[in-house]
Amino acid sequence: MDYIFSDKISNLQPSAIREILKATADPSIIPLAAGNPAPDAFPVEEVQKIAENILQTNPVDALQYGVSEGYQPLRDTIADWIKNKENIGTDDDTVLILSGATQVMDLVTKVLCNEGDTVICEEPSFIGSLNCFRSYGCRLKGVPVEADGMDMDALEKALDETDKVKFIYTIPNFQNPSGATMSLEKRQRLYSLAKKHNVIVLEDNPYGDLRVTGENVPTVKSMDTEGIVIYAGSFSKILAPGLRVAYCCGPKQILAKMTVGKQASDVHTPCLNQMIVNEWFKHYDVDAHIAKIQGIYRKRLNLMCDAIDRELGDFVEYVRPEGGLFIWCKLPDYVDMLAFVKKAVEKKVAVVPGNAFLTDDKADTQYIRLNFSTPTEEGIVKGIQILGEIAKDYK
Amino acid sequence: MDYIFSDKISNLQPSAIREILKATADPSIIPLAAGNPAPDAFPVEEVQKIAENILQTNPVDALQYGVSEGYQPLRDTIADWIKNKENIGTDDDTVLILSGATQVMDLVTKVLCNEGDTVICEEPSFIGSLNCFRSYGCRLKGVPVEADGMDMDALEKALDETDKVKFIYTIPNFQNPSGATMSLEKRQRLYSLAKKHNVIVLEDNPYGDLRVTGENVPTVKSMDTEGIVIYAGSFSKILAPGLRVAYCCGPKQILAKMTVGKQASDVHTPCLNQMIVNEWFKHYDVDAHIAKIQGIYRKRLNLMCDAIDRELGDFVEYVRPEGGLFIWCKLPDYVDMLAFVKKAVEKKVAVVPGNAFLTDDKADTQYIRLNFSTPTEEGIVKGIQILGEIAKDYK
Repeated sequence: MDYIFSDKISNLQPSAIREILKATADPSIIPLAAGNPAPDAFPVEEVQKIAENILQTNPVDALQYGVSEGYQPLRDTIADWIKNKENIGTDDDTVLILSGATQVMDLVTKVLCNEGDTVICEEPSFIGSLNCFRSYGCRLKGVPVEADGMDMDALEKALDETDKVKFIYTIPNFQNPSGATMSLEKRQRLYSLAKKHNVIVLEDNPYGDLRVTGENVPTVKSMDTEGIVIYAGSFSKILAPGLRVAYCCGPKQILAKMTVGKQASDVHTPCLNQMIVNEWFKHYDVDAHIAKIQGIYRKRLNLMCDAIDRELGDFVEYVRPEGGLFIWCKLPDYVDMLAFVKKAVEKKVAVVPGNAFLTDDKADTQYIRLNFSTPTEEGIVKGIQILGEIAKDYK
Repeated sequence: MDYIFSDKISNLQPSAIREILKATADPSIIPLAAGNPAPDAFPVEEVQKIAENILQTNPVDALQYGVSEGYQPLRDTIADWIKNKENIGTDDDTVLILSGATQVMDLVTKVLCNEGDTVICEEPSFIGSLNCFRSYGCRLKGVPVEADGMDMDALEKALDETDKVKFIYTIPNFQNPSGATMSLEKRQRLYSLAKKHNVIVLEDNPYGDLRVTGENVPTVKSMDTEGIVIYAGSFSKILAPGLRVAYCCGPKQILAKMTVGKQASDVHTPCLNQMIVNEWFKHYDVDAHIAKIQGIYRKRLNLMCDAIDRELGDFVEYVRPEGGLFIWCKLPDYVDMLAFVKKAVEKKVAVVPGNAFLTDDKADTQYIRLNFSTPTEEGIVKGIQILGEIAKDYK
């Protein structure tokens, strides 16, 4: 049979990163292409004890159907946590538990967008979210990212000139892939532009707790007096991605529609996994754990940036990020970026070609994305050394 | 701000069942409205041991990101299991792991249907799946269910007369809500009609292992020589729904598109949960466990049907199902069904009004759905007794 696929799916390609990662299943390849948290950042012993305790004392709640909104004790725990930490949440907001933060993007798009509507996003941006928007037949309108976040004049122009914009998607902290953190002034301007144009802001903050230097900047959601910001948070980077537990905080009316969407898509997030996260908050010092993993990533970020400065100093341009997982490097104009990436894989170093993160992934770019959380410390140094050797061939 | 929702979501209402269940959070209400497996059917000790062992011996795989297709050992385990048990799967098929069987419906709809396309389904059918199809802007075309499954003449007529039919959705075993099991002859005719009309069959079999009497009937998927059947199976009813692990088996080409859709919707099903299911197969006798829960449900099904015969014998019409979780009861024509359901809730018995399961949920029906897996055995007897008392008022 000749299968005919829906319009919105038939042009969607598998994630370029995941395709590269398949090539790198070979364990001899140094994985600078991935985005996996460092396994030594997982609180393994704590999860062992918590899971054992839940299944001993409360197995039926862990194994039975739950409600689509999420496990109520965890909803309460998160509401308190983000209120205290980031001043997020008003009386008109509520918190939902979702199966990974990508599901926040999925359900927001489902409830807000018809096919042909536009999502404004940073350019470059996280490929998983871009593919999610594409999978609903949305058009993408990219706004360039500068060292201090989205170009606000370009955003204003995009809002003025683009029809049927349903929301603005932003990763304000240590953006994937650029590493940029949006300044307070830009966050304030983003909020007023969204308000003026009656457009929702989808603020995705998976890396916010991975700050290794500098001062925390208030979230856009903390400025939200009008009920126009949906905030997405995740436990993938601070606890464990394999549990697939994330959350969002936003206007009750929108989240009620997202709940209806979740009923019809995966019914609810697994109960055992939600209970593990809640017990982690109840019995352990989450802030101390976050401080610990900040230490792990501070060391790795500096290791990679120092290696780049040493091995690739004249060759690439980049801005040292204040946190997150990624370094976004620009190759010289005379270099064929895709050929460079291919040479790197041949020499057993996997990196992601920057075009994967563009709204038009066939557009030209000189950028590559490097990750420092997945490789070992030795892998970071060796990987950058190899890229340095490839760079020498261009001189 | 006045929120404007997408066309496909703005008319979708929260599940009527879940709304009724909220009214029944009151523990004094007898829950004949739910569809939860009986907690005594959960292999609690086994899951305790398995989870402990996984988190002791292989914590990083359990907590790290996984691949969208699913945990490979579990994919292999399931492929073998359904091949041996149901002769499901050809060289052109593959198996994906999904986050509950509703996600199978979600991704099949996403990859096959544009807005305005038609899904043919049984009438009545599972509200969760109907809402899933609606959430993609699909039209629903219902085909009446008879005691031996879908009316095949009506199906043929629907296929002849309806434009842009993308798939036929069927629950062939102990259908939710009707309890009907499709005969072998009808399954064969369904397959040839689908083949003739170049239409995919989505075979949803969550209850197949819950047969309490009679002989197993071959699945439609076992007849699939043309690559036109997608089979959905679940561990919600035989292991535990709170784990949210399900699977589908179908043509590689379609499942590759579904994988792209899954990447963009929840990335992957939680690793710990997939590993628990796989270790359950490796270390325990799954068939023996299924035989045990069949015993539990046989007793409850007979208890409820005997109570109905005793207390409501002259009042309702129903066909005793050969398995599953539900009894589908027709009230007399002179009874206002919705008023009856309301009276039942007032007398502390929750049942589901049958219109919830119709393609047009505002259409009239005399049916109600009763569930025997969620209440205690005492609750079953008492609940039907109370319905019997209400029935007396009509005489």
